[in-house]
Amino acid sequence: MLEGTNFIAGQKHVGDTFFHAVDAGTGETLDPAFNEAGEAEVALACSQAAEAQAVFGNLAPAKRAAFIRLAAAKIDALGDTLTQRAMRETGLPQARLEGERGRTVGQLRLFADEIEAGRWQRVRIDHADPARVPPKPDLRLRMIPLGPVAVFGASNFPLAFSVAGGDTASAFAAGCCVVVKGHPAHPGTSELVARAIVEAVAESGLPAGVFSLLQGTSHELGEALVKDSNIAAVGFTGSRAGGLALMRHAQARPVPIPVYAEMSSVNPVVLMPQRLEQAAEDLGTAYVASLSLGAGQFCTNPGIVLGVRGEALDRFLAAAKAALESVPAQTMLSGGIRDNFERLVGGLADKAERVAIGAEGEGSCGRAQLYTTSGKAFLSDPEFAAEMFGPSSILIQCDDLDQVDQILSGMEGQLTATLHLTHGDHEAARQLLPTLERLAGRIIANGWPTGVDVTHAMVHGGPFPATSDGRSTSVGTLAIDRFLRPVAYQDMPDALLPAQLQDGAPGMPQLVDGKMRHGT
Amino acid sequence: MLEGTNFIAGQKHVGDTFFHAVDAGTGETLDPAFNEAGEAEVALACSQAAEAQAVFGNLAPAKRAAFIRLAAAKIDALGDTLTQRAMRETGLPQARLEGERGRTVGQLRLFADEIEAGRWQRVRIDHADPARVPPKPDLRLRMIPLGPVAVFGASNFPLAFSVAGGDTASAFAAGCCVVVKGHPAHPGTSELVARAIVEAVAESGLPAGVFSLLQGTSHELGEALVKDSNIAAVGFTGSRAGGLALMRHAQARPVPIPVYAEMSSVNPVVLMPQRLEQAAEDLGTAYVASLSLGAGQFCTNPGIVLGVRGEALDRFLAAAKAALESVPAQTMLSGGIRDNFERLVGGLADKAERVAIGAEGEGSCGRAQLYTTSGKAFLSDPEFAAEMFGPSSILIQCDDLDQVDQILSGMEGQLTATLHLTHGDHEAARQLLPTLERLAGRIIANGWPTGVDVTHAMVHGGPFPATSDGRSTSVGTLAIDRFLRPVAYQDMPDALLPAQLQDGAPGMPQLVDGKMRHGT
Repeated sequence: MLEGTNFIAGQKHVGDTFFHAVDAGTGETLDPAFNEAGEAEVALACSQAAEAQAVFGNLAPAKRAAFIRLAAAKIDALGDTLTQRAMRETGLPQARLEGERGRTVGQLRLFADEIEAGRWQRVRIDHADPARVPPKPDLRLRMIPLGPVAVFGASNFPLAFSVAGGDTASAFAAGCCVVVKGHPAHPGTSELVARAIVEAVAESGLPAGVFSLLQGTSHELGEALVKDSNIAAVGFTGSRAGGLALMRHAQARPVPIPVYAEMSSVNPVVLMPQRLEQAAEDLGTAYVASLSLGAGQFCTNPGIVLGVRGEALDRFLAAAKAALESVPAQTMLSGGIRDNFERLVGGLADKAERVAIGAEGEGSCGRAQLYTTSGKAFLSDPEFAAEMFGPSSILIQCDDLDQVDQILSGMEGQLTATLHLTHGDHEAARQLLPTLERLAGRIIANGWPTGVDVTHAMVHGGPFPATSDGRSTSVGTLAIDRFLRPVAYQDMPDALLPAQLQDGAPGMPQLVDGKMRHGT
Repeated sequence: MLEGTNFIAGQKHVGDTFFHAVDAGTGETLDPAFNEAGEAEVALACSQAAEAQAVFGNLAPAKRAAFIRLAAAKIDALGDTLTQRAMRETGLPQARLEGERGRTVGQLRLFADEIEAGRWQRVRIDHADPARVPPKPDLRLRMIPLGPVAVFGASNFPLAFSVAGGDTASAFAAGCCVVVKGHPAHPGTSELVARAIVEAVAESGLPAGVFSLLQGTSHELGEALVKDSNIAAVGFTGSRAGGLALMRHAQARPVPIPVYAEMSSVNPVVLMPQRLEQAAEDLGTAYVASLSLGAGQFCTNPGIVLGVRGEALDRFLAAAKAALESVPAQTMLSGGIRDNFERLVGGLADKAERVAIGAEGEGSCGRAQLYTTSGKAFLSDPEFAAEMFGPSSILIQCDDLDQVDQILSGMEGQLTATLHLTHGDHEAARQLLPTLERLAGRIIANGWPTGVDVTHAMVHGGPFPATSDGRSTSVGTLAIDRFLRPVAYQDMPDALLPAQLQDGAPGMPQLVDGKMRHGT
């Protein structure tokens, strides 16, 4: 059923260089062979995207929404075929992948609704005033798509952050054609999803260049894609080194383009004293559930937990230790990721106390691990704050809340920051909040950072290096903004104005002479 | 009255290196000597800004608006003192500078109103749904300030794009402290405006670090400012070389920051055939008025005009020639700018036909000049499309509208693109519009690009290299967005939520569970 081809503007492409996926659990090579895209395929996909852009970017919102809904239905219909292939390629369990498929198609449908709601166009109308000196012109503003977007599939979310993931969904919603570089660890999963999109493009009567999938293993492929002059923006979720490289390529172009790279986060969690006193054991157990979820392979994994040393923190640690020792080994996404994890925790073991380690496994399994150190030691060694992608975390035992604040103030930008607190902690928490707002894109109370809801108010972003561009989110409807830019029309005759900029355009929210008017 | 000092967080600073302003008309050195800021002053201004940021960024909107209005009133009250000094330093005429002062204070007041309207906070509330599987959290989003902003004063707008210009006004509106590097060609003008802001900061009871002015002539000063770790974003209007240098410095930082540089634009104007036939002479005369306005020293100067060759275009050219020959020489902003202009038009004279030249003047005066060439010649030499800052323009005589489209399609990003058209041109104009939307941030019908209204719907921006970041505008209320980033609060207790994120916050527009709710 899998063909191992690239999909370039609807055409299958077969060349003469190939790679294989590997079963994450067994290390076995999986069929079929996948064709490596090269420079010619990048150029073709991008020029086709540029050609399709004029049509796709100007499509009526209802038509673009219908296309996205059709793609969502086709991905959903892949059902067990998709899950089974993704399980082998990623080692992720069935329930997780089924949930991820639901999230992926739900996300596409949310963006389809958002296209029709029209807020993203940010229509503004300032009427003329010929009597003013000098005469005031008629000005009307709307957002238009940036142009074709390059999307890099992520290894840890083979569906929700890959071929039809959040970057693709929000780029489509903005009216941007998309060229995906599939992650080489799950090419079969990518092909299945790509085929669903290609079918939706064709059945919607859209130009085939609206979507392409390029498969391949080389860094050069990604570099060529980012440097292609037809690409107008980049979406990426992955390693810090990978994201930084894409930023450099994008800046070195004759025409620099924005890169939205989500890269690195240790997601600090603060245990406020009174809440800790109340619920040390429950918190300790929940901590281990969060740090080991999905073998710890989440961008929002709680890598650093901060508490004030004392009897309550000892109880927390004891509960976490007990919970962690019974965490089974879990297959990691690939042998390479497992090896990297082992190397990083190995370095940590030299300088922090290992509290507990989970069960040993076979193949590319990762063992959950919990470390602890003092606030003073943490402050003396910046390496403690580096991300360790996998099921591991460090509990920092601080002298007091001032030291907690000092540690948080010195940290790099984060996707999330979390407070566990109760009423009695509010005053102390209020002192920490400005630090947390500077630090992170999302501040969580009494939860754990893993789990990212796809809604209007979600921010999955944060200051560098959590992302390359802290002014944005990659999850939630605000993600559309990343791929838009404003255009103003001055004194343009009605006959030439886009429909949504006409006075009283039905269904379109408009800011008219400074007042909001809601389309009915 | 002028002291020649820097203003660092309200403190006057005097060191041991000095520079002088020069009378733009006479070349005479003006008193007083101005102190050159160095690395220590940069570091002090930026650390004071960072310290003030927590207070200023969390100020109630009404208080921030009141501060901005007070600063506007104080700048307006400078009246003739400001105009006289600016006339000497820039050579710009009195009426222009009085208009520019009006625009500057009007702009500050517009941003003050915008702060109170609250839209810029983009509040979004998604209520919890504990019954959902998994349970849906409560999520609330608002925009917060990025942090201290470095603003570079522009030579060509000593008020509206300088110390209290659009970048400063929008950064203040966003809640960002500001460190200005004043343009060395008008340090006295900068000092007068800075003193007004410093007084407004003090009288509003704000921390002094909210605003600093650094004066100096060296590139190193600007580089140190952009590289200071306390600076979170940069606003700049100036040359392409200058903007590109700031972009490089910002990207090379350990933590890269956004640069909003407005750099280079030739603002193409298309004369559609039927409109040209109707009004060739009037258009020719108006063209010369626009290209020579303010000695052509506008970012939106019409540097390139495109028409289809023929009898009507000959009439246009004849009218433009007649008008241009009677344009008096005008003092340019500085001798350096005049020399650069002479060099660029000298190169142009070697390859294009000079249609007309305006009167000769003395000192740093620039002579208005009009050139013409063929569409074919233009396409063969990319140098024709380079900006020539000054009162000069090129009329491109094209074979047909297809060649016009070809030329526009090949141009770099622009601030504006203009169509002169009548009913009979609509169909042909409709074909050009997608090209113009890709090309520019503002599309003008039947006007000239000089003149930028400060309103909600204005876009003064455009694809690279018109600006470094085409996703933004530096004029109009949408400019606030440049200095904001989103933060989400998950399951945060009401007692700790910012007021505007509370259910039913008075006066605050909120997107609640996907529906707009308007504060009353």
